Amino acid sequence: MVEQLFVIKIGGNIIDNESTLGSFLEEFAALEGKKILIHGGGKLATRLAADLNIPQQMIDGRRITDAETLKIVTMVYAGFINKNIVAQLQSLGCNAIGLSGADGNTIQAHKRKHATIDYGFVGDIDQVNAPFLQSLLQQDVAIVLAPITHDLHGLLLNTNADTIAQETAKALSALYDVQLIYSFEKSGVLLDADDDSTVIARLAPAYYQELKATEKIFAGMIPKLDNAFAALNSGVKKVIIGKAEELQQLITGHAGTSIVNE
Amino acid sequence: MVEQLFVIKIGGNIIDNESTLGSFLEEFAALEGKKILIHGGGKLATRLAADLNIPQQMIDGRRITDAETLKIVTMVYAGFINKNIVAQLQSLGCNAIGLSGADGNTIQAHKRKHATIDYGFVGDIDQVNAPFLQSLLQQDVAIVLAPITHDLHGLLLNTNADTIAQETAKALSALYDVQLIYSFEKSGVLLDADDDSTVIARLAPAYYQELKATEKIFAGMIPKLDNAFAALNSGVKKVIIGKAEELQQLITGHAGTSIVNE
Repeated sequence: MVEQLFVIKIGGNIIDNESTLGSFLEEFAALEGKKILIHGGGKLATRLAADLNIPQQMIDGRRITDAETLKIVTMVYAGFINKNIVAQLQSLGCNAIGLSGADGNTIQAHKRKHATIDYGFVGDIDQVNAPFLQSLLQQDVAIVLAPITHDLHGLLLNTNADTIAQETAKALSALYDVQLIYSFEKSGVLLDADDDSTVIARLAPAYYQELKATEKIFAGMIPKLDNAFAALNSGVKKVIIGKAEELQQLITGHAGTSIVNE
Repeated sequence: MVEQLFVIKIGGNIIDNESTLGSFLEEFAALEGKKILIHGGGKLATRLAADLNIPQQMIDGRRITDAETLKIVTMVYAGFINKNIVAQLQSLGCNAIGLSGADGNTIQAHKRKHATIDYGFVGDIDQVNAPFLQSLLQQDVAIVLAPITHDLHGLLLNTNADTIAQETAKALSALYDVQLIYSFEKSGVLLDADDDSTVIARLAPAYYQELKATEKIFAGMIPKLDNAFAALNSGVKKVIIGKAEELQQLITGHAGTSIVNE
């Protein structure tokens, strides 16, 4: 029997709220079996940049990562956030290891090429090192991935955490039955972005197309959902979207949105 | 036959100089066999604290680590410095993994207790997780340790890198023939601190006591040398002190100071 693996992404809003993060980490620590946590950035990097008078530029919700900003996100994501999450998990009895994509050559990427926009030090993923991650999982260590990758030529690269979660889930689906969970501050994919009671329990491609066509889906959800369907088409067994503090219910199917292929 | 392991510490002055660090990392990458690199802090943390108007207090050359300073050293040591060293090693064909003491519960420590001085979030080491480090070394991954540990109760702690090197060397000497190398900007233990040609090639306990008694040894070297002799007495095979850019010569005995037990 193929073993189960949970690949769980937490959004920036969860990281920014100490008590929400604490509740989530308790649930994550209690979760039985192999598990990988991917964290985004949160507001700390933006705040640090402001304190250091480093101007931040955003295009389409993506941070333009100049050299000074790369320093900041490396410090905040791979340093402060990653190590604090690991220390908290250790205190909850969950042995964990925090990695950037450079560590163990876990995630290799290249600097994004774009016809019109220079994103700076932003990475698009080439490869996830599944055998190395497996060797750690076999030791019953939970893995905590920071959204920083490298290009194997000495450059660190700022990389979208949703994409890291998706690519990691895909790469490991050859070795495990992977459940990919995008957890954030909302209860799931909502019909009304402001009403947490309008969770869509089950989202199949046809319904998704209909919701997109009628603009009933919040624009910010679209890349996440496109990622989710792509993951299902690449061997990931299950994709679930929902509230970070309801991790157990998300996994047992009692909360959140299940993304399904039919 | 017991396998060899190199445990190599680089000082802050090496980290602060990009070209010296680059030369050292080339030599480290080229070194055959199992290896662990421990890096100190350098001036970047002090500079960042100044930029953020966080006052820094030092007692006996040790930074007093208040909560804000802990944030800074976690970001700089475990984030910026550690990940940049790992990325550079990867670019040199040396697969490496960067860890804080929290990662894989590698180094467990407790907050320092002191009768008169409150050092703040400074850690004294309780235990190094030798089996976990061994499991990584067996995969031919070089390990890069940042001078941040944890207390298993959720606290990260700022920890002296020399001590981490010594404790790591000691813990692993049950599993490997360990050579502990303290590398820095000078050519070794010097009779005249300002004259790099006065290297003591071989330092045994009797001569060390004589140099201390006649105050011929630079005060800053004393804790390092006390550490070195303690390591030899705890199973470490060899301790060498010398210039970071002469790593090969240090190992072959053609440069630096060998600390010996008789």
